[in-house]
Amino acid sequence: MLELRLVQGSLLKKVMEALKDLVTDANFDCSATGFSLQAMDSSHVALVSLLLRSEGFEHYRCDRNLSMGMNLNNMSKMLKCAGNDDIITLKADDGSDTVTFMFESPTQDKIADFEMKLMDIDSEHLGIPEAEYHAIVRMPSSEFARICKDLSSIGDTVVISVTKEGVKFSTRGDIGTANVVCRQNTTVDKPEEATIIEMKEPVSLTFALRYMNSFTKATPLSSTVTISLSSELPVVVEYKIAEMGYIRFYLAPKIEEDEEDNKA
Amino acid sequence: MLELRLVQGSLLKKVMEALKDLVTDANFDCSATGFSLQAMDSSHVALVSLLLRSEGFEHYRCDRNLSMGMNLNNMSKMLKCAGNDDIITLKADDGSDTVTFMFESPTQDKIADFEMKLMDIDSEHLGIPEAEYHAIVRMPSSEFARICKDLSSIGDTVVISVTKEGVKFSTRGDIGTANVVCRQNTTVDKPEEATIIEMKEPVSLTFALRYMNSFTKATPLSSTVTISLSSELPVVVEYKIAEMGYIRFYLAPKIEEDEEDNKA
Amino acid sequence: MLELRLVQGSLLKKVMEALKDLVTDANFDCSATGFSLQAMDSSHVALVSLLLRSEGFEHYRCDRNLSMGMNLNNMSKMLKCAGNDDIITLKADDGSDTVTFMFESPTQDKIADFEMKLMDIDSEHLGIPEAEYHAIVRMPSSEFARICKDLSSIGDTVVISVTKEGVKFSTRGDIGTANVVCRQNTTVDKPEEATIIEMKEPVSLTFALRYMNSFTKATPLSSTVTISLSSELPVVVEYKIAEMGYIRFYLAPKIEEDEEDNKA
Repeated sequence: MLELRLVQGSLLKKVMEALKDLVTDANFDCSATGFSLQAMDSSHVALVSLLLRSEGFEHYRCDRNLSMGMNLNNMSKMLKCAGNDDIITLKADDGSDTVTFMFESPTQDKIADFEMKLMDIDSEHLGIPEAEYHAIVRMPSSEFARICKDLSSIGDTVVISVTKEGVKFSTRGDIGTANVVCRQNTTVDKPEEATIIEMKEPVSLTFALRYMNSFTKATPLSSTVTISLSSELPVVVEYKIAEMGYIRFYLAPKIEEDEEDNKA
Repeated sequence: MLELRLVQGSLLKKVMEALKDLVTDANFDCSATGFSLQAMDSSHVALVSLLLRSEGFEHYRCDRNLSMGMNLNNMSKMLKCAGNDDIITLKADDGSDTVTFMFESPTQDKIADFEMKLMDIDSEHLGIPEAEYHAIVRMPSSEFARICKDLSSIGDTVVISVTKEGVKFSTRGDIGTANVVCRQNTTVDKPEEATIIEMKEPVSLTFALRYMNSFTKATPLSSTVTISLSSELPVVVEYKIAEMGYIRFYLAPKIEEDEEDNKA
Repeated sequence: MLELRLVQGSLLKKVMEALKDLVTDANFDCSATGFSLQAMDSSHVALVSLLLRSEGFEHYRCDRNLSMGMNLNNMSKMLKCAGNDDIITLKADDGSDTVTFMFESPTQDKIADFEMKLMDIDSEHLGIPEAEYHAIVRMPSSEFARICKDLSSIGDTVVISVTKEGVKFSTRGDIGTANVVCRQNTTVDKPEEATIIEMKEPVSLTFALRYMNSFTKATPLSSTVTISLSSELPVVVEYKIAEMGYIRFYLAPKIEEDEEDNKA
């Protein structure tokens, strides 16, 4: 039997908004340690990894490991019916082909339960090795979202270049070129407004803006975003989920040849 | 001659928003006692009844009974031109085929008059007998609107079931099922947040959510809604209009056979 | 070389929003005295004239007169990437076929530069003679915008009539007629809420509402609008740009014959 009670139910609503444009169907894996998901986007280019640790739930009961296939669009429809202050409980009986979401209003005057059919989804769990990154940028998530959105009005790809001084986002398109530089800045009033760069060596990598814009749907989950870059590795765009875990997006850089093609 | 002056002109704007999606053309009936309307929706399934009593107007002059046929979409276009704080005066000369809406800004610096052609509309006034209802639910109107909207993302019909403990709204659709229970609750800080159930016997009736969602367009008119249910009668969904009257929507329940068809 | 630094960058964003629906491509003319534009709308009916005087810029360097042809839609895309509090600098090298917009965030932590290709645009500069107007109306710009929007839900043209008492806006359409009168009113708490009429002789002129509605896109630039009317001249709808200049729209009145045709 599975029963997970999350007092801050709005977290689950935000997680769903962050996932549903990128992933159509996915297996949610429940174990004693937490509630997690790993899935490729529908065009098999980007990978998303979600973890909500069991400690973050008010009540967490998971008798045996369970993998529940869900249609994220349908799950999102149901979670949209939860109020922002509702407590959300996720329940599944052993061997059942359904999952139940229960929403309790803070006053307990309104209680809703939504039952959804589960699906069989083939998926292989990819091992994501821990890696050393050449450069790690931590910056306000709203700033990163704004930059990705702005640049996509000019071009299709973004070159992210990191030096000790700052991080530069560049694009080019039919109407011209654009460069946005965010300077390293640790002396801010609020820590979440800092832009902090840890760099072993300079990197400059090119990515499709379409995916970056999908990743920024996770912005409401965290005031900061961490972007980890290495020339041979997919970029990791990570949003921490307060005290509970994270949502991480992985995207392979476009190789130089691609980039030249695009420019031609 | 007809001249009705309504200081709280925004009421009339809200009434129009509540009506215009449901009813295309209708006769507004003016008499010494008030300004009223009774109309079927365009598919002849739901009935709406509006009353604005003469005492609610700052000035109310109606020399003889008058029935004015109006296109509600056009009337809505004109009322949208009134500011929310404007005083609205409705004027018609005897025998005229037009009606004039006058909007005065609170400072009297801006005065607008909109003249609209009247229409001949055949309509028969249905007598709605006073009835005894098995159960009457009074609840916050925004809560009711939210539930109808939420459930319509899952299914097409809602089963409303009343017991002494509370009222349950249920639906089912391709993606699953949903139940929302609102408990009787009279010990709230603000009276308009109470959910109060008067019940003679339990009822459980099925309705098309499409109509319920149309009715909830009246939500801005009142902080509470009253739902009166009996197994042999159309449901009445009533929104009181402060000190002046009401807007009531009537909808026949779907019979069991229908419901079974839908489930099959 | 050209370098214009505008601390209140949001002004330029608002100017672009005011222009881009009316004008597709236009030459921006830079001289020692200021940054200006004159252009016909794409259907060659309305004329727009913009002036931003050099004194309004924090830094203004223009070594020689320069005319820069820009696509306003593309320029708007780039300016939308500037934050509302950003300082905007416009730069062009002599003989270059590009212009650069630089956006600096107030904290200087984020610096963006957008480079746009210039275009060759044929245009003749029309001399607009200073004229004496029969009537000049100054009124709140939001009021004027609201009236134009409201009337266009009823009809296609507006008759603007000025008397000593006030200004009347009238229209007629299939569903009826509308008149909005704004009274002269100089005794208001805030000067920008006044409606002031300077009149030499009464005027009554007819204009296409479509253009009036385009002009009101400039509303965010100024809390007041000035409408100058003479029976033989195009109307001038002017929005002052704080301390810097103005944006003026010119539109020829519809002649009586036209009006009669429309009514027929």
